[in-house]
Amino acid sequence: MHPSVAIRQLTLISSGADYFSGLTNISMNSRKPEHEDLKKERMKSTFNPLELTILLDGGREKTKIRRELESNFFLDPDLKDPVPIDFLSHKEMYEETIRKTCILYKKFLELKKSEDEFSAFRERAAMTIVSAILKDGNPFVMNTAMFITTLRRQATPEQQKKWLKRALDFKILGTYAQTELGHGTYIRGLETTAHYHPETQEFVINSPTLSSYKWWPGGMGHTANYAVVAAQLYTQEVHRGVHIFIVQLRDEETHEPMPGMKIGEIGTKFGMHTINNGFLAFQNVHIPRDQMLMKNAKVLEDGSYVKSPSDKLVYGTMIYVRVVMLQTCAYQLGLAATIAIRYSAVRRQSEMKPGEPEPQILDYRTQQYKLFPSLATSFAFRFTANWLWNLYNEIIVELEKGTLRRLPELHALCCCLKAVCTYEAAKGVETCRLACGGHGYMTCSNFSTLYGAATARCTYEGENTVMLLQTARYLLKAWQQAKEGVALPPTVAYLSRAVTGSTGLKSWQNTTESIVTAFQQVAASKIKSCADSMAKRMQMGISPTDTWNMTSIELAQCAEAHARAFIVEKSVSTIEGMHNVSAAMKSILTQLCELYAVYTLLNNKGDFLMFSSVTSSNIASIQQWMEMLLLELRPNAVGIVDGFDFHDAALSSTLGAWDGQVYERLFEAASQSPLNKESVNQSFHKYLKPFLKSSM
Amino acid sequence: MHPSVAIRQLTLISSGADYFSGLTNISMNSRKPEHEDLKKERMKSTFNPLELTILLDGGREKTKIRRELESNFFLDPDLKDPVPIDFLSHKEMYEETIRKTCILYKKFLELKKSEDEFSAFRERAAMTIVSAILKDGNPFVMNTAMFITTLRRQATPEQQKKWLKRALDFKILGTYAQTELGHGTYIRGLETTAHYHPETQEFVINSPTLSSYKWWPGGMGHTANYAVVAAQLYTQEVHRGVHIFIVQLRDEETHEPMPGMKIGEIGTKFGMHTINNGFLAFQNVHIPRDQMLMKNAKVLEDGSYVKSPSDKLVYGTMIYVRVVMLQTCAYQLGLAATIAIRYSAVRRQSEMKPGEPEPQILDYRTQQYKLFPSLATSFAFRFTANWLWNLYNEIIVELEKGTLRRLPELHALCCCLKAVCTYEAAKGVETCRLACGGHGYMTCSNFSTLYGAATARCTYEGENTVMLLQTARYLLKAWQQAKEGVALPPTVAYLSRAVTGSTGLKSWQNTTESIVTAFQQVAASKIKSCADSMAKRMQMGISPTDTWNMTSIELAQCAEAHARAFIVEKSVSTIEGMHNVSAAMKSILTQLCELYAVYTLLNNKGDFLMFSSVTSSNIASIQQWMEMLLLELRPNAVGIVDGFDFHDAALSSTLGAWDGQVYERLFEAASQSPLNKESVNQSFHKYLKPFLKSSM
Repeated sequence: MHPSVAIRQLTLISSGADYFSGLTNISMNSRKPEHEDLKKERMKSTFNPLELTILLDGGREKTKIRRELESNFFLDPDLKDPVPIDFLSHKEMYEETIRKTCILYKKFLELKKSEDEFSAFRERAAMTIVSAILKDGNPFVMNTAMFITTLRRQATPEQQKKWLKRALDFKILGTYAQTELGHGTYIRGLETTAHYHPETQEFVINSPTLSSYKWWPGGMGHTANYAVVAAQLYTQEVHRGVHIFIVQLRDEETHEPMPGMKIGEIGTKFGMHTINNGFLAFQNVHIPRDQMLMKNAKVLEDGSYVKSPSDKLVYGTMIYVRVVMLQTCAYQLGLAATIAIRYSAVRRQSEMKPGEPEPQILDYRTQQYKLFPSLATSFAFRFTANWLWNLYNEIIVELEKGTLRRLPELHALCCCLKAVCTYEAAKGVETCRLACGGHGYMTCSNFSTLYGAATARCTYEGENTVMLLQTARYLLKAWQQAKEGVALPPTVAYLSRAVTGSTGLKSWQNTTESIVTAFQQVAASKIKSCADSMAKRMQMGISPTDTWNMTSIELAQCAEAHARAFIVEKSVSTIEGMHNVSAAMKSILTQLCELYAVYTLLNNKGDFLMFSSVTSSNIASIQQWMEMLLLELRPNAVGIVDGFDFHDAALSSTLGAWDGQVYERLFEAASQSPLNKESVNQSFHKYLKPFLKSSM
Repeated sequence: MHPSVAIRQLTLISSGADYFSGLTNISMNSRKPEHEDLKKERMKSTFNPLELTILLDGGREKTKIRRELESNFFLDPDLKDPVPIDFLSHKEMYEETIRKTCILYKKFLELKKSEDEFSAFRERAAMTIVSAILKDGNPFVMNTAMFITTLRRQATPEQQKKWLKRALDFKILGTYAQTELGHGTYIRGLETTAHYHPETQEFVINSPTLSSYKWWPGGMGHTANYAVVAAQLYTQEVHRGVHIFIVQLRDEETHEPMPGMKIGEIGTKFGMHTINNGFLAFQNVHIPRDQMLMKNAKVLEDGSYVKSPSDKLVYGTMIYVRVVMLQTCAYQLGLAATIAIRYSAVRRQSEMKPGEPEPQILDYRTQQYKLFPSLATSFAFRFTANWLWNLYNEIIVELEKGTLRRLPELHALCCCLKAVCTYEAAKGVETCRLACGGHGYMTCSNFSTLYGAATARCTYEGENTVMLLQTARYLLKAWQQAKEGVALPPTVAYLSRAVTGSTGLKSWQNTTESIVTAFQQVAASKIKSCADSMAKRMQMGISPTDTWNMTSIELAQCAEAHARAFIVEKSVSTIEGMHNVSAAMKSILTQLCELYAVYTLLNNKGDFLMFSSVTSSNIASIQQWMEMLLLELRPNAVGIVDGFDFHDAALSSTLGAWDGQVYERLFEAASQSPLNKESVNQSFHKYLKPFLKSSM
């Protein structure tokens, strides 16, 4: 018996064969026969991918629930596009999306209704499926993600009674209008005004300039009929800062914009084509006093202003949003890696050994070097996101008890993770696409949609550089405290060790322990170096603001190093803490975790040479370690991506389908082009023939 | 007088004020008033941007010619899109593109006809303008770029007589059909067959498998009516390898595909939406014997095969294609940097100093760090491309004399430059886009089109990793020769110095001399390290092919290091060799050149710490040097991009127009959306209202 088959069987036995039975993946019912190369790959893997699936879902029952939900949504013929939307005009794309979105949400609401308890897992799984079907942007997304969230957080019980249930039931459709044409990340700069008039007990909302037009909110173009709107509040002729107002945008019967409002969509974009981003301008729009969200700050009838007791509460939601972003980064990188790895297993090119057939491109070391790190990164981000998710749930409990102690630490952590993970995910998706050559450039590979969504995340929910600098500010404070001997919270405790010089291992060894220490040494040294140059600049009489700006390139790099150290540490500790997995599974997860760390180290080797116990003489052996990991992962690459258990409909890719019949699928996709319905396009007779016949 | 104004005047005087007169830029006739912030920036610059314009064009007369041509094309109302094509369906986009392309080429041909001498400069300039107007892909491009080139290179005089003039006059429209669905960079793997039948003196062409379908050729979908086709030749039942055949694809009168041919377009893509990439399958297509291109290899009437005397001649064309690619990389990076820098001069955000107005984002050091390196890279690539262009012209002369000696060196150089420059250009365009935040994500910023084109270049004309490995093979040979004491050609002469240990400076100094040496030290050491590990592996009994694959990650990195060393060296020597420029101009070009080098060094500092005289203790001062360059370039940033003298129509960007009225332009662009022509879209009545009214 081939050793790998033995291991495979062993895995099944050790985990209990029963455990895996009764779970059929509908992807397997793919209509084409399995490609021979993929079949061989699947025979080769040293573990049972289903064990990974169950591990990632969080249990056997959850895998079952998810697959049932997937069948329910993905096999529904009403949710298929008659023609791939990429061939449609911008307007047709919107109309087709609204059609599908209404059907989807109706289904989703019915599911919720039909069960006594629509579990959190089921709800999350269903929303992931919704996102997969509306992969180029969901025009309803802001209703759930921001409108309802804001009402829950900032509306009074009376306001919630009036609006929340209607929004939850999709009687009204809301969006979140904050960003303006001239104002993004810097919220204090918003220009929209809301003046309170005690005589009518109304706010009057205005967009005083073109740059104050609300710009970007998803679904605001032609879809939403309500919005929560951020505006500068003025009462009793005093400016009170930015507050949130609930505003009806369109008539519920006719959908016409309400009086005094100019509403439209902002045009075509790099990606997210169907999210229907909109603009909105106000001209003397009157709303009653009870439409300012007043759970915290309040405006009384006479215009007196009552301040919010605390504004840290908002951190909880930010952490939530960023954990979800991290999960999405991990998910999308997983999709990209799956597509590229399956394609690389069936694509053959060139001649590695004279006389032999063209090899699978997955056998090229350079190809493995492009793909496996993205696969590894997907796992590292997932482990980090899981840890944060658990933490978020602890924090929520603490918050309810009035404890805000851990918020600044975690807010700082989430800022840098948001930046690093969104950036790395986008880069990873692009690397996978480029590794698929020309065919990766086809829309039907699904890479362009994935990249369009992935790269957008670098900008929204806090621009990445701004995020990094927020974390850097926290890190500098923590460094100062460490120097003063103040005990630091867990995620920055390594700074105290750096101050005292007890940073751990003296000389480098190729172990995960060395790696974790080295990443923390680098982060601590970069923070120290920034603190020192800032001190020097201030001593030279440079103002604190100029000093900050002058040091900002390195400050952003500090925050990146902190994020990476955290991801590496959490990946290592997550795997160390896994006890209910087979030896084969654990070994693969360890390889992936090490690959993420070693690859990241080598890509930043200058920092490690300068600031950690890694020396020039270690680099060759670290490179060998990385290449060994690529080699070890090679036989399981297809098995691992099979373990993600992505439905073909979620992959939505000619190159990534389970069966691997890429050329047939590419040709079928081309056949769907409306241009191919006629052998000669009318432009020949109108333009081309007259030109060719007339030219000199 | 403010010192910068003094310098500006000095520049004008020293260069001769007359020299700049009489050149008006039509971009200046932009319909909106100049944004105040840009006006101030333009006052600040320490040099006259027109001097840069003239320098880049290559002389005053050329600037004049180019601007006249631009007026002629860009102001033609027939060449404007009634609606921006991004709003159209895939099919409408194609039809609108054919309309414009026919008008464009008619104009272009008339220009050629109306002049006694249509100079090479004028022709190149006009073609650049054509590309700007057809920025998302020119469906005729393959006729000139590949069909005509191939006929010139490989057709006999008789064949040229029959086809070339018709192609040059656009009586027929050709494309180049090489790549197949299953076969890209590896040409020997092509599957299309051409069997010669002496009894009819015909070739019979077939596509034996789905993976042999021709796939990707530009214009092949519904536009071209002829193609040169690469196929495996069989005569006298012997396989003769890949040869080129001229094949009529469509009837000249009806445009219907010729018998036995299946033709269509391949569908939607990440970018290059209007280039009309096509597929093509043959079923027993008969063509006469004289339609194999027989300038080199020949098939005689009886089927006897006559080999080509040499196949190195093809290198000349490859060098040509890659020089053009480098020029395009430099051009597109320039466009991206212009858009992002102008936007960053008018965009204001956040609060740098308490109480002061929001600063221009161009004043943030982190923003300068994102934008100025791309600007610098654009110049570095341009200098490199210019040097190569001159060389190419020398080589052509040598070739005609039968001297092939320098071809392998230059072919190797062009391979790695193709890879590094296309990759860096794409990355630079993306960095500029991300630096423009949300608005950079809008199609109307033009970044998505620029990136779509830039990233495609990493794949076509030789996939980048394959290119790097080709160079690596040459470098290893050169290294071996260096060790044997063989004198090496100029571009790899530094390897001989590395072998003898005479690599120049002993200790690092912040000078360009140190930089050039350090880049060469890094490249040489990486090549040496690869050669050593390969030797070790082979000694262990590993086969040469496995050794090559095992070392390929590092081999690719060698070739990158070689390319970077070359770009740095050529940039430095180009500027050193400039004598007819003002001191102010030269100082700015020097800053840009140093920034490219220092930025690249810091981004690869691990290599420099390991392999050059740079030590850890130098890094802080190199970082300071880089930041000083950012600071020095800041006042001239807008001046430099003005100096590119890009017409607003070429920038095609709401964010990058000369006047800087970004918010007005964004709003106008949104107003063009067909969705915004109605206040309520029909999908409300059809889908949304029924859903909202019915939901629970």
